[in-house]
Amino acid sequence: MITEAYCTELDQSDELATLRDLFALPPNTIYLDGNSLGAQPHAALEQAQHIIRHEWGNDLIQSWNKAGWFQRPLQLGNELAPLIGAKPNEVAVTDSTSVNIFKAAAAALHLQRSQATTAQRRVIVTERSNFPTDIYILQGLTHFLNDGYELRLVDHPDQLNAAIDHDVALVLLTHVNYRTGYMVDMAALTTYTHQQGALILWDLCHSAGAVPVDLHAANADFAVGCTYKYLNGGPGAPAFIWVPEKHQPHFTQPLTGWWAHQSPFEMQTHFQGAGDIRAALCGTQPIISLSLVSAGLDVFKRTTMAKIRAKSLALTDLFIQLIEEQCSGHPLQLETPRHHAHRGSQVSIAHPHGYAIVQALIERGVVGDYREPHIMRFGFTPLYTSFSDVWRAVAILKDILDHQRYDTTLEKNAVT
Amino acid sequence: MITEAYCTELDQSDELATLRDLFALPPNTIYLDGNSLGAQPHAALEQAQHIIRHEWGNDLIQSWNKAGWFQRPLQLGNELAPLIGAKPNEVAVTDSTSVNIFKAAAAALHLQRSQATTAQRRVIVTERSNFPTDIYILQGLTHFLNDGYELRLVDHPDQLNAAIDHDVALVLLTHVNYRTGYMVDMAALTTYTHQQGALILWDLCHSAGAVPVDLHAANADFAVGCTYKYLNGGPGAPAFIWVPEKHQPHFTQPLTGWWAHQSPFEMQTHFQGAGDIRAALCGTQPIISLSLVSAGLDVFKRTTMAKIRAKSLALTDLFIQLIEEQCSGHPLQLETPRHHAHRGSQVSIAHPHGYAIVQALIERGVVGDYREPHIMRFGFTPLYTSFSDVWRAVAILKDILDHQRYDTTLEKNAVT
Repeated sequence: MITEAYCTELDQSDELATLRDLFALPPNTIYLDGNSLGAQPHAALEQAQHIIRHEWGNDLIQSWNKAGWFQRPLQLGNELAPLIGAKPNEVAVTDSTSVNIFKAAAAALHLQRSQATTAQRRVIVTERSNFPTDIYILQGLTHFLNDGYELRLVDHPDQLNAAIDHDVALVLLTHVNYRTGYMVDMAALTTYTHQQGALILWDLCHSAGAVPVDLHAANADFAVGCTYKYLNGGPGAPAFIWVPEKHQPHFTQPLTGWWAHQSPFEMQTHFQGAGDIRAALCGTQPIISLSLVSAGLDVFKRTTMAKIRAKSLALTDLFIQLIEEQCSGHPLQLETPRHHAHRGSQVSIAHPHGYAIVQALIERGVVGDYREPHIMRFGFTPLYTSFSDVWRAVAILKDILDHQRYDTTLEKNAVT
Repeated sequence: MITEAYCTELDQSDELATLRDLFALPPNTIYLDGNSLGAQPHAALEQAQHIIRHEWGNDLIQSWNKAGWFQRPLQLGNELAPLIGAKPNEVAVTDSTSVNIFKAAAAALHLQRSQATTAQRRVIVTERSNFPTDIYILQGLTHFLNDGYELRLVDHPDQLNAAIDHDVALVLLTHVNYRTGYMVDMAALTTYTHQQGALILWDLCHSAGAVPVDLHAANADFAVGCTYKYLNGGPGAPAFIWVPEKHQPHFTQPLTGWWAHQSPFEMQTHFQGAGDIRAALCGTQPIISLSLVSAGLDVFKRTTMAKIRAKSLALTDLFIQLIEEQCSGHPLQLETPRHHAHRGSQVSIAHPHGYAIVQALIERGVVGDYREPHIMRFGFTPLYTSFSDVWRAVAILKDILDHQRYDTTLEKNAVT
């Protein structure tokens, strides 16, 4: 049996423990929802004050050059690149994940249509369990292209290979599933997709900053992801898009705003794409929210993704083991794989009264979230979550379950 | 001859003069670039601190509901609506102007194709002198639609009526030209466009908060605009999109992200559009930049657009008259119409060494900007610009011109 003292010992020997001091965490709270909204780095407040007072308030329009606002999407892209195995000048932080999926998927289909051997392919494969916006964007894109595309929705990762055949133009997969935390094998699926002559677009929303990602090692085609979960960039902070060098000369997407132009300040009448990562940009970016992404990324410069992954697996292993030791006898079902190779940085557990229990946990300061159907979702963010946090969270969960301290009549509320 | 004392008197009787105290303006600066980036309302700093410390830092994920983050695009849209003659629940503040043009233009073309009488129309009319992103987005959209659309670029507003014929599906016009400050007649052009059976999309980037706009009185179809110029929402703050009630049931745009879904939290597999203004949304928004838009909009609640317009015309009239009195003999050419009905809230003046003179003005604390070719652009923002500012700006311009205190060897730098 694991003891609280053992968890304290784990914290004492945890090399990442001091990073927690870089974050502003609320008192009396065990925050297990960094997979939905990452915590606030202290530096974000100072940075926002500087941008508003000095860059906006004092230097005003001159900050577009002087403070580097115009270069910010690519500067941040370069800072983010090492976390996902991207090279310099391959990543832009810009727009939302949804908009970036649209750009990357449209560019991929355009690339396929331009090649004689793949021009006729009209199937796009993705998972039915994907976060809905991925599917919705593909539906909007294909409806709008009106060129015979169909979506093939796969029910389980094991069925992906069978679904990816010679009719497939594009595969859009989420590396770590938002609901279950199931992680698929990026390198193997990319290789298989390429063998079938299709392109692959990876959604890294629940991977970037959570698990090691190496897009180049996998030889992937495109990727998108968000910065406000494990990267702690701030609420709704702009997302990222990765276009590797190999695809940049042919990257054509429909959102051809002036930031994607070769010479945006020459005010030419005809659009001429930049031919580099800027071709993935569109219009003017929300500079304050965008800039704060660097406060989140800076924390990652103090450690490595390997160390983060090691602690993440230790945290999730501990959580699973404690639940099994402390909460046996309750109708809990582990939805997240036990196998490390298939686990992201979250643990999802189903319970018939999952929604009510999550609300009771939040009341007691343990902040996880709920996802349909019945899933209690707990994110583990090694930068600011301790092993003692895990102990206390399970102790509170045990108390709630053992004494049925939850209200099954609660209405479900909108949460993201 | 106008005297400095006369300008001081104008300030003393200016009802809007005290609004200047609501803004953080740099010392020793006459800021005439609010048409590019509006000044910082003091309230923006306090608001950002509150959002970062309390909403993000303390309440974390709960702020999506508790602080109303999820409702913010429509809440701000409702606050902005009265400034442009929109009704409640017709405006969303979201994404960039470029992305919103894409949505609105795509929706308009979709609407035209769905109607038997206009299904075959394949021409989109806009002005060659439009801000380039408007043209680029139309090029990207029509290229991807691959359905025979062509752009018809008009060289002067006087030629618009001739260009809008029965082949035209959509007209995209900017109400006030970014370079010259020329304002077209929204009501007349909308009526004419409808008579020809086409739809019209208005770009209000240089109108919202600058001149009175009444979209419903004009019976317009769609509109977009930005919040970071005359609305003082902050650098690159999210833009707005207007979809009137009459078009909401049929508003179909390709960027079908989850925020546009009827029931975004039910996580359904199939996209079902919201059928109201939410159909113009796409993905998660940059909450900090987005929220600060309200600090800018709040200032407008203290006055009326009629009063702002009256002062704006007084300021630009004064500027033009002073230039003519003080700077005669120099090769200056007024690019902005003298006729009030055709003037926005800026004055553009061409000079062969326009770029160098603008740099010299900035060195002396008079911040305007430069636009190709040869144009010195000065924006007048009645909320924080005084008549004495105008006097001093012209005095400094006169000194620079009279003594050729500018460096014609300067390289042109990227400015927005």
